Amino acid sequence: MKSHRKELWFSTPTRRAFVNITPQVERCVGESGVREGLALVNAMHITASVFINDDEGGLHADFEKWLEKLAPEKPYSQYAHNGAEDNADAHLKRTVMGREVVVAITDGRLDFGPWEQIFYGEFDGRRRKRVLVKIIGE
Amino acid sequence: MKSHRKELWFSTPTRRAFVNITPQVERCVGESGVREGLALVNAMHITASVFINDDEGGLHADFEKWLEKLAPEKPYSQYAHNGAEDNADAHLKRTVMGREVVVAITDGRLDFGPWEQIFYGEFDGRRRKRVLVKIIGE
Amino acid sequence: MKSHRKELWFSTPTRRAFVNITPQVERCVGESGVREGLALVNAMHITASVFINDDEGGLHADFEKWLEKLAPEKPYSQYAHNGAEDNADAHLKRTVMGREVVVAITDGRLDFGPWEQIFYGEFDGRRRKRVLVKIIGE
Repeated sequence: MKSHRKELWFSTPTRRAFVNITPQVERCVGESGVREGLALVNAMHITASVFINDDEGGLHADFEKWLEKLAPEKPYSQYAHNGAEDNADAHLKRTVMGREVVVAITDGRLDFGPWEQIFYGEFDGRRRKRVLVKIIGE
Repeated sequence: MKSHRKELWFSTPTRRAFVNITPQVERCVGESGVREGLALVNAMHITASVFINDDEGGLHADFEKWLEKLAPEKPYSQYAHNGAEDNADAHLKRTVMGREVVVAITDGRLDFGPWEQIFYGEFDGRRRKRVLVKIIGE
Repeated sequence: MKSHRKELWFSTPTRRAFVNITPQVERCVGESGVREGLALVNAMHITASVFINDDEGGLHADFEKWLEKLAPEKPYSQYAHNGAEDNADAHLKRTVMGREVVVAITDGRLDFGPWEQIFYGEFDGRRRKRVLVKIIGE
């Protein structure tokens, strides 16, 4: 069994952002030499997400609006977690979007349906944060 | 390490549907010859879900009602993603329900609690769509 | 390839509870002898969750309040699943929080970001329930 580990770093200029990281993950698969296996891709921070969906700007605007409705950023005082921090909403938003994805590797490539793309979802940005890629297989 | 890959195809007659796919996934485990390992089961489409819950009609009716409250289908004009398409709500609903499950394989079988069943959740049906089963182990 | 399986048992005194299970999962990784691989940690019951977030009491109070807003426990009559049972809300809450996490194992340890902790999320407690830990790797 082979294994491969890589950290991807991000620092988004805005509090919230969606970044398509599919090319970086594909590169990791190539580096790993794994032909058949699984790739785990997870946010290493608890106010960020890794998820799979469509790379379409209208949809991302819908996600932003929808998450603000489900778990509004403000008023900060509505959350017990806030005080020293103001990012309770980011913990909730990341819970909706998910911490991680597991993707099949087949024939040395990410085994994807037609529109699947991997995104880093940032909900408390403007600082350096990491995604972990861990690949196992043969 | 062994690996096994299979696609399951679905075409639901309604826009939304829940289909119990546990027997098909169990069959894949049998075909794989894997006794100890992991099975990844994921929707290959971004308006569908694979999730684990109870096979109970009342609960499925509750899911339908609840998802319509969290991410209503209509009016279509409320979503920026809609225009050429009308399925923005399906992207959001699938986000709540999840893209994938990872299930342990122990002694050649899906290692499940008493009521766990795997479902395909369709939110934009009436067309042919796929689920990927990828099994690795020994 | 090595594999290791363990069940963790819980019986929370309240209907809802969050239990930090990171030390137990770390112990499983040690027992497995796996240095590089993946750990799947999943609720074996469909009214409970395993998720990763911060071990902070204010945040857990926020989760409780937020989940009650998204999927209220009462009135029981609002859910078709209820009747013989009264736990439909627990199925929905667990859907939001997620069934499982997959965690990388690197150099014989859980490969975590600075604040990541694994929790058992109980939404229909006061009975004995289980979490499965399945580890594969080398």
